Amino acid sequence: MEVVNRYVATRHHIEGAPTEADFEVREETVRWAPDSGEVLVRNLYVSIDPYQLNRMKRSSASHLAVDCILPGQRITSYAAGEVVASACAEYAAGDVVAGVLGWEEYTLFKPSPALLMSKVDTSAGGGFPLSHHMSVLGTSGMTAYAGLFEVCKPVKEGEKVFVSAASGSVGNLVGQFAKLSGCYVVGCAGTNAKVDLLKDKLGFDAAFNYKEEPDLKAALKRHFPDGIDICFENVGGEMLEAALANMSTYGRVALSGVISEYTGAGRRAAPDLLELIYKRITVRGFFAWDFLPRFAEFGAVIGGWVREGKVQVVEDVSHGLDSVPSAFAALFRGHNVGKKLVKLA
Amino acid sequence: MEVVNRYVATRHHIEGAPTEADFEVREETVRWAPDSGEVLVRNLYVSIDPYQLNRMKRSSASHLAVDCILPGQRITSYAAGEVVASACAEYAAGDVVAGVLGWEEYTLFKPSPALLMSKVDTSAGGGFPLSHHMSVLGTSGMTAYAGLFEVCKPVKEGEKVFVSAASGSVGNLVGQFAKLSGCYVVGCAGTNAKVDLLKDKLGFDAAFNYKEEPDLKAALKRHFPDGIDICFENVGGEMLEAALANMSTYGRVALSGVISEYTGAGRRAAPDLLELIYKRITVRGFFAWDFLPRFAEFGAVIGGWVREGKVQVVEDVSHGLDSVPSAFAALFRGHNVGKKLVKLA
Repeated sequence: MEVVNRYVATRHHIEGAPTEADFEVREETVRWAPDSGEVLVRNLYVSIDPYQLNRMKRSSASHLAVDCILPGQRITSYAAGEVVASACAEYAAGDVVAGVLGWEEYTLFKPSPALLMSKVDTSAGGGFPLSHHMSVLGTSGMTAYAGLFEVCKPVKEGEKVFVSAASGSVGNLVGQFAKLSGCYVVGCAGTNAKVDLLKDKLGFDAAFNYKEEPDLKAALKRHFPDGIDICFENVGGEMLEAALANMSTYGRVALSGVISEYTGAGRRAAPDLLELIYKRITVRGFFAWDFLPRFAEFGAVIGGWVREGKVQVVEDVSHGLDSVPSAFAALFRGHNVGKKLVKLA
Repeated sequence: MEVVNRYVATRHHIEGAPTEADFEVREETVRWAPDSGEVLVRNLYVSIDPYQLNRMKRSSASHLAVDCILPGQRITSYAAGEVVASACAEYAAGDVVAGVLGWEEYTLFKPSPALLMSKVDTSAGGGFPLSHHMSVLGTSGMTAYAGLFEVCKPVKEGEKVFVSAASGSVGNLVGQFAKLSGCYVVGCAGTNAKVDLLKDKLGFDAAFNYKEEPDLKAALKRHFPDGIDICFENVGGEMLEAALANMSTYGRVALSGVISEYTGAGRRAAPDLLELIYKRITVRGFFAWDFLPRFAEFGAVIGGWVREGKVQVVEDVSHGLDSVPSAFAALFRGHNVGKKLVKLA
């Protein structure tokens, strides 16, 4: 079987904030054969995530932890799709799968644990909408859950939680999960509409627009007069400095992302380390994938919350492969609300 | 009973590196009465520690975690002395005690848990030299032990440990303890004589003079081609940046002190936070005192090592109260080797 695959590629390495012009859509012919051991998937949703930018930098080629993206090449990404043809016993045509596929219309893969591929139940009976497997039940939900409950570990009722980039794909879930755990939750975001969403729809105790705060340290001091017990950090730079200056004793910081530092636009955080010592702060970088063996457990809890209406699922969906570059660039302009996805086909 | 107490005081708040001229020795008359509930101690050794500088800054007055030092006032400090007179049942004249006393010849105290006062056995039979209770069995030893074994937790044989300020009071013990635990240990120090001490006398696998390294990142890369598993950080600034850039995946950083940042002379560390995320690094600020309930347990282990000759005790002793200011200033000039103490009387 042959299909024409349209895929998004970078035109060159990207060092600053990405723009649409950094990308192009290419075509190739993909051939699947019954004796290949391969699976051909038609992608239905692709995930658009800020961290991908780091894979597009020239320096990524020398970084062991990063699977670098080369100009002109297809871009692997978490995505969901439908099996069109399968030459292995684990998958059959018609199966819906989620895992590492790509920013492309079709992906051909050989089963491998590294692809984190799972079959997805989208039946009207027990299933969730497919998009949810890209958001609340996908990496965003797992990152929020693992970072909050496994890295930061709320231990007492009423612990005070600060979430930066709180209307983003991960942040909005961290805040909602923390509220369900009895925490006091404050988020920050970059527009008043996002701030209203956090407070009015997602149940945050308070939220503020960081662009309207001349002094981030003072803003956090106002919201956390007794200090921040848990900081879920998605931003870095001055925001992280301000949060670290406002931690309470034995505070915990989950370092999930530092989007302000990805583009090189903002300066790096240079926190007062004495504060970290005096207050015995723990800062821990983590990946959701470190907790992979527990994803089923996490997913069962999160799925229960979604079914019971306790967690609102916020997805921001663009349409068609050609919208991938603008969807990605928009992340760094703060235009997304919740999980950014592109729906194909 | 009345005694004339000579004590060291600051003349003013100190913002940069301290000099002898920032201090003066003052006199006061101290009165002890049999019905006061108080204990009068003649101090024998006082501890000279870099962190004291932070208590001398103007900003310390507004910092909750710090017991600030005011110009002209006596300066509390860990010390050891002999009870001269006691108006409480727990202590008797002749007892030797260690705890929070002061940079002074006599200290009057009322027993309180905050003073961390303990009686010390200096008998020829079971005891250790009194100075050891200020160094390897005092806060330096407890900081090294707690930071290495409780914060960094070496888990595998042969884990790779980097110790900054490795010839200092805490660093030299961290390195020795880590070697006893089967780790590979590299330290850095600021003179070639210190480097030789680390390698030849204290059993470090390697050591380097950071003043002779134009590129600290490259120096660490040379010593740790496979990355640093455990970093015991005493320095901060560029040294910490270089260490963080060389950590291995799941590396752990115990933030014990940041002496390069105390004086405001060096710039603050602004590490690449992406490295922390990609490598899932944990950075944790800590105090030895957080582990106070376990000091007896730690002390038993350390004492055993000292008795068996497995740990070398490196003490740097000056004499007489008048030498306290120069002993303290010398810490920031890198002149001490091991634990800096001043012996009184």
